This record gives sequence, C-alpha cells and structure tokens, in this order.
Amino acid sequence: MEEHVLAAVVQIRSGRIEARPKRDGKLRHVIESQQFTVPLLMELFDRARGMERVVARGGSLEYQNRIMATLFYAPSTRTRLSFEAAMHRLGGRILSTEHAQAFSSEIDGEQVEDTIRIIGGYSDVIVIRHYQEGGAKRAAQVSPVPVINAGDSEGGQHPTQALLDLYTIYRERPLDGLSVAIIGELDKGRTARSLAYLLAKFERVKIFFVSPPELQMKPDILSYLDEHGVHYELEPDMNRVIGEVDVVYQTRIRPERTSGSLQQYAINSALLPKMKQDVLILHPLPRTVELDQSVDQDPRALYFRQAQNGLYVRMALLTLLLEKN
Amino acid sequence: MEEHVLAAVVQIRSGRIEARPKRDGKLRHVIESQQFTVPLLMELFDRARGMERVVARGGSLEYQNRIMATLFYAPSTRTRLSFEAAMHRLGGRILSTEHAQAFSSEIDGEQVEDTIRIIGGYSDVIVIRHYQEGGAKRAAQVSPVPVINAGDSEGGQHPTQALLDLYTIYRERPLDGLSVAIIGELDKGRTARSLAYLLAKFERVKIFFVSPPELQMKPDILSYLDEHGVHYELEPDMNRVIGEVDVVYQTRIRPERTSGSLQQYAINSALLPKMKQDVLILHPLPRTVELDQSVDQDPRALYFRQAQNGLYVRMALLTLLLEKN
Amino acid sequence: MEEHVLAAVVQIRSGRIEARPKRDGKLRHVIESQQFTVPLLMELFDRARGMERVVARGGSLEYQNRIMATLFYAPSTRTRLSFEAAMHRLGGRILSTEHAQAFSSEIDGEQVEDTIRIIGGYSDVIVIRHYQEGGAKRAAQVSPVPVINAGDSEGGQHPTQALLDLYTIYRERPLDGLSVAIIGELDKGRTARSLAYLLAKFERVKIFFVSPPELQMKPDILSYLDEHGVHYELEPDMNRVIGEVDVVYQTRIRPERTSGSLQQYAINSALLPKMKQDVLILHPLPRTVELDQSVDQDPRALYFRQAQNGLYVRMALLTLLLEKN
Repeated sequence: MEEHVLAAVVQIRSGRIEARPKRDGKLRHVIESQQFTVPLLMELFDRARGMERVVARGGSLEYQNRIMATLFYAPSTRTRLSFEAAMHRLGGRILSTEHAQAFSSEIDGEQVEDTIRIIGGYSDVIVIRHYQEGGAKRAAQVSPVPVINAGDSEGGQHPTQALLDLYTIYRERPLDGLSVAIIGELDKGRTARSLAYLLAKFERVKIFFVSPPELQMKPDILSYLDEHGVHYELEPDMNRVIGEVDVVYQTRIRPERTSGSLQQYAINSALLPKMKQDVLILHPLPRTVELDQSVDQDPRALYFRQAQNGLYVRMALLTLLLEKN
Repeated sequence: MEEHVLAAVVQIRSGRIEARPKRDGKLRHVIESQQFTVPLLMELFDRARGMERVVARGGSLEYQNRIMATLFYAPSTRTRLSFEAAMHRLGGRILSTEHAQAFSSEIDGEQVEDTIRIIGGYSDVIVIRHYQEGGAKRAAQVSPVPVINAGDSEGGQHPTQALLDLYTIYRERPLDGLSVAIIGELDKGRTARSLAYLLAKFERVKIFFVSPPELQMKPDILSYLDEHGVHYELEPDMNRVIGEVDVVYQTRIRPERTSGSLQQYAINSALLPKMKQDVLILHPLPRTVELDQSVDQDPRALYFRQAQNGLYVRMALLTLLLEKN
Repeated sequence: MEEHVLAAVVQIRSGRIEARPKRDGKLRHVIESQQFTVPLLMELFDRARGMERVVARGGSLEYQNRIMATLFYAPSTRTRLSFEAAMHRLGGRILSTEHAQAFSSEIDGEQVEDTIRIIGGYSDVIVIRHYQEGGAKRAAQVSPVPVINAGDSEGGQHPTQALLDLYTIYRERPLDGLSVAIIGELDKGRTARSLAYLLAKFERVKIFFVSPPELQMKPDILSYLDEHGVHYELEPDMNRVIGEVDVVYQTRIRPERTSGSLQQYAINSALLPKMKQDVLILHPLPRTVELDQSVDQDPRALYFRQAQNGLYVRMALLTLLLEKN
C-alpha cells in the first residue's frame, strides 16, 4: 500500500487514538467503515476470494493457536456465529459470550475498558457488539489486541456488514458508476449508514435513500457524502427509483416507527418485473414484512449469498488483523 | 444396505420432503425416530460400539475441519453438551447457542427457515431444538447441510434420545421379544414417543404404557403400533407390570398435571425387590421425585450409563451424516 | 512431594471425601484454598512461570484431545473466559455454559449431583461456579473427573482467584514476612476469604482486615488464623494501615451494605503518596467506586497483570489435574 493510502487508515494504539498512520501502515482495529481506503478494500476482497477457495477445500488449520473473543453485549447470534465460523474455518479458537452484559450485571458501574484490558490478555482479537454508540471505539482505545466493531447501537455502525455487502456487489460488477437504492428505516440503520460511507469511496456512484421522511438518513452521513462529492437523493417513493437502480438494498422498517403505510416500502414478487434485468437485490437480514419470501426464487435475489459472503469477508479481515499484529 | 431398506429412510432435499430414497441411499437428516430401519439401527449401533473404543483411546482428530452448529431455541444444556462433546471427541468444531431465541427476539417475524439457510452456510451439520412441533422438519426442508432434531416441543419427538435408549438396551440383550414398561406423563413425553416408534421395528415386542389415564400416550402412537402389529397395553397401575417386564423405562410426571397420587408412579428402593433380577432400569434424565436416589446403587439402574451412551450414539450419528454428504 | 505434605491435600473420590491422601499423592479436585500446601503452591507457581513462556511462544497443542466443561450456574464471563482461554492455550477443547441454571429450570428438583455424573462422562475436567455454598464440594463427591471450584456463593470460596492473587505477589517478592491490608466487604468476600487461607501458610505474615465493623471478616476465618498462629488485626480505619503494608488488596463494597461513608474505603490517586514506594496494589476486579481509574497509571497498580496471571495459574492448575488423572 502507498503512503497516501495509509494516511486514511485510522490507527489506534493502546491508550489513545492516533490520527497519523502507524509506521508500518498496518490495519489495527476495525471500528468504522470509512477507515477503509479503496486499495485496502481491494486487498481485503482479494483475500476474501481466496477464502472462498479455502472453505471449498475444507478450511485451514493455519491459525490453530490463535484465539478470537466475541463479546456481544447485545445478542446477535447470526453475526456472532458468522465471525465464529470464520475463525473456525481458519483453524482458530473461540471465547464466546452470548450475553456479555452478564459482565456488567455483576457490578453495575463496571466499564467496558476494564473488561477489554482483561479479555485482551486472554485472546488475539476481540469482536465486540456494544449497546452504546462509540462502545467499540472506547474498547479499541485500551485494547492490547485488535478490536472489530460488530455493531454499536442502532444509530452507530456495523462496518463488517458493509464490507460484505460491498463484496457481494463487487463479485457481480464494477463498483464505479453504480446506482443504489437504500430502502428502509435509515435513521436507525447502522448497516445502511456503514454502506453509505463505503460507497462514497468509489467514482460516479449515485445513492437513492428511500424512506418515509421521518425516518430518513441522518445529516452526518449526508454531509459526508456532500464533502466527498457523492450524488444522492432523498426519495419517499420507492416506485420512482426501483426500475432505475443497479442495486436494491432493502432493510427493515418496524411498523411502530411510521405512521404511513409500510406496504409502500415492501418488496414482493409483484415488484420484480419493474426492476432491471440484472439488478442485485440485497438485504442484511433478518427480514420481516419488508421482503416477501416470494422474492427468494428470483435469481436476482442475492441475500443468502450475501450472508454466505460474510464468512469469506470476515475470514479475510481476521487474517489481515492477525498476521500483522 | 439393501434397496428395500433404503425406501424406509425419509429423504429430504432442499425445498421439499421426498418420499422416495435418495439414489445413493444415504441418511441425510434425522427428524423422527421412525425413519430408522432395523439395518440402519444396526449400522449405527455398530459404529457406536466403535466410538466407545475411540473415546477410551482419547478421541480422534479425524473431523477437525468440520463444524457442528447447535441451535437451541429452547435451552437444554445437557443435550447440547452431549452433542458438543460428541463433536469434540471426533476432533470437530462447535458453533453454539444456549438460547437461540435471541435470534427471533431481534425481529419477531423472523422465520426459522432464514436462519437455517444462513447457518447452513457456516457449518457442516446443524443440531436444532425448536420450541414448535415440526420446527426441525421445517429446518430440514431448506437446509443445505444435515439437520438433527434434538427435541421439538413437548409433544413432538427426540429421536437421538430414543436411539441412545435403544442402544443401552441393545448392549445388554436381544431387542426381539422384549417387554418394556414405559412410565410417566406420556401424552407430553417426546422421549417416550420416540422410543415407542423404535421399539415397533422389532419382533414380538410388548409395551406397557403406565400412566394416569388423563396423561396416557396419544392416539397417533397407538395407531402406529396397531398398524405395525405391536402388542401394547394401557395400564394405570404400575404394580401390575413392574415385576414382569425386561425394561422399566421411567420418565417424569409433573405434580401439577395429575389430580391423583404421583407416589403410585414413583420408583424407589422398596420397589426393587419386585422387579426381575435382570431388569434394566432406564430414565432419560433429568429426574425429580419419580426416581429416588436410593435406586442409584442398584446394579440394574442403568440411567447414568444410558446418558454416557448418548455420547457414543451421537458420535456415530455424526459420522454417518458427515461422511456421506 | 513428601508424604507429610500430601496428607494435607484434600482427596475426594467418587461418592465420598477421603481425609487421607490418595496413594499416589495426586491433586484431584480444587475446592478450597486451604487444601494447598506450600510445596504444592511452589510446584504450581513453577508451572505457572513455565506457562508464561508457553503463551509467549503462541500456546501449545499438547492437550488437543482433552475437554474442559465450564458449568456456571451463576454467570461470570470474566472468570469463565479466563479458564477457557487457559484450556485453549493448552490446545484443549471447551464445553461451555453461560447460565447453567437453565439445567435446573427445566425441572426444579434436579440435583447438581446428577448433572455432574453426566457431564463428567462428557469431559476430562469440570469447572463449576455454583450459587450455593458447598455446591462445588457436592459436585466433587460424585464426579468421575476433577472438579475446580470457580466460586461458590458470596460467602464461600474462590480458590483459583486466591492462587492467582498469591502468584502475583510471589512474582514480586518473598511471601514470608509479608504484611497485607485486605480491604472491603469482607463478610461476603469469597476472594478475601480464600486469600486469607493461603496467606496463613506462610511465615510471619501480618494481615489487616479493613472494613466497616458490620462487614468484617467472619469468625471462621479468624479462628483458622488463630489456630495457625497468624497475626491479624481488624481495622475500621484504612488510613491507619495504608502506609505500612507491603500489599494493598482492595475489594468491592456495595453502597447499599453500609450505613457509613464508602469514601473511607476507596482508593484514589490522592492516597498513592501515602503508600510504600514498593507497595503492590491488587484488586480481583471487576471494580466500581472503590478503586479510582486515576490509580491505573501508577506502576504499583498490578491488577491488570493480576488478571493476566489468572491465565497462567489456571493453565498450570489444569496441567496438574489433567496429567495426573
């Protein structure tokens, strides 16, 4: 990687965040999707393709002495098992918590920093899902080992989800020039937020944020896109964009959060003929009413492959973090 | 295995249950105990005996690249750890959930099918305990990897429990000609139900269902036994059969479920002299008042060996499923 | 080890506790800290130093066929993960429960003895945290494999915590002649209790129990110290001893348990100048208000190294138990 690229990588060392890159330009923690540069993304995706072959051959034992700890303060079995499967397919070992909040239940005042200092002495990499925005960043500031943010609060980020989302698109077509509809409850959509940051890295991308006005994407993301010259539109009517975009990225809307009809934002088989013949239909899952099961049979529905790609991308990320520390 | 045998094996492929066997006659999913034929049982039991030797030698590393996921929507630490120990003794790896209902807590409408499609991409075999009757079958219908039913609802089945129950008897005596008392709360006894299906596979078996009339075995099992020409009796009085049978299979009765005296259905040391000198006393465990600890010292009490046999039978089953897929 | 030493090791065999040592003098279960003799402690600490080197080299695969079960009836993720990391660094395998009380939730009357008999057939060593005082001892009385007490109730013991506490002191200075202030809610402090038993093994030790009178150390420990000729004082005023002692062992005080001011028993940076220049500041963690984060930067604050030492001591203990059974 070149020097100017490395400068964009957030480097965090024990005790403080460093604005400048580490001398050796290595990726240390994964906290926010915007810390990934295009060259780093390409290196990661290259490795992920290699991991597809590793898994097809039955996995590796290369990392059989390494330990990954999954600290899930908020339960998310699916994401947790995706990381744990990735570590297993690399031959590694797991320290696991389904409900790490049992930590703090013992004594209420306990700080995540103390936990991380201790668990960092027991493991080689920590995957954390924290209930507070910024929880993963606080963890990284004190951790002796790499920290991966597996989602921090509803309005925070979920960078590895965005990485696998982007990898799924990348496997199908060039990322420059892409038009994407991101649909759902976007103000509290950490996967949508993290994906927007990543899409902004590419040329001539166009993003339609499709949501009831009261649930639209928050200004911090929109400012970021403005600064980076990314074309976007806020669109309350899904029907106006569904036929134009290369990627339909559907996310959930909880009925209790909107006064309007959710039906306007749901994808079902009736909508399929209106979409481009080579559209990619993605969803981070789990889903409820916003994505009907009748869509599953359509060859353009890629969400289960997307979930599978999470395995390869997380394997790739773990090798990046483990070999370099 | 011969062709006519294979026809009895329930074969399930992605998307639908197939009545006819797979071409290659391989066991794919384990959902109901009645899908096991006598030759398949004998193959399984043969392997289980081999597994006793493998464990005595300290286990194997043969499956060190394979991953088993345990999805327990209802907690059952004992059954879960039995499966996980089996996978470990084969050298394999575990993705584990103590309370997989955390999955669906996230979004209420989520379907088990979506979860299975995803976890099936992360693992080589899935062990599921679902809170709904038929949950395991629904899982098998969409799973890309073998599914094992580890208990589906109180009135459903628990086929691997029945397999280890039968294996425990098989290790002691011939299965043809056996007389068995199955005692307890039989209408909601999935282990009793699964065992009845298996016993029906053998010649000249006689089953006494011993239970308060209001908690007796349900008609679906009785019809199955009628169809297969199995001799059975419904018996409210334990004392009338306890001295006659080769096997006493005790299960729980919850006090709140019967108006009568539970004492009539409890086994304690006072009853031991009335039983056959070579009777086998079994219980799927956990137990409460229906099986007194004073029975534990009797050499005819086999329930702890029975639990241990669960390890060998589950190891055998895992090798059958993993080598053939 | 010599014969007279072995006599002090509590030996427990299936079904009953034996007062006399096993013929071969081997350590079988770890239930109470007082079962450790000085020579056994020295053997353990020697091994622990070896484990520091094993971990620095990236761990071992020596125990890759062995299984450790962690049965935590009360959740304690930190202690559980410390044991699990220790087993992983030895190459071993884990059967894990975050909330083993799910066992007993199934049927209320279930006894820990049944669970242990079963899990002992699935594993090579059991680590148990039980909610009842004596729970671990009851487990050891029936277990076919070694049992380690990872904390039994608030007023019970936590022997491995005391072992790592003592190891942390041992790494810094001689244990004979030590003066130690043990501060906090001592009547319900199982780590303080277990440590007091261990300190009593050494010569010319002086212990100050610093606590509000209503939360002072219970008479059973004080009698034990009297019997073993250990000098101790009950001290309500931390300031009177803080400048004299070689070791400050701080533990929690829950605000709701005392009517007095907790501030009197809290350690913060203002107190640091009053302490000896080479004092060792320890805390079993987790902490709340009783140990301010401003203390963390002081080189005499050893509590994170103490937590790290838990890994080495538990690895050492596991090798002692696993190789000898």
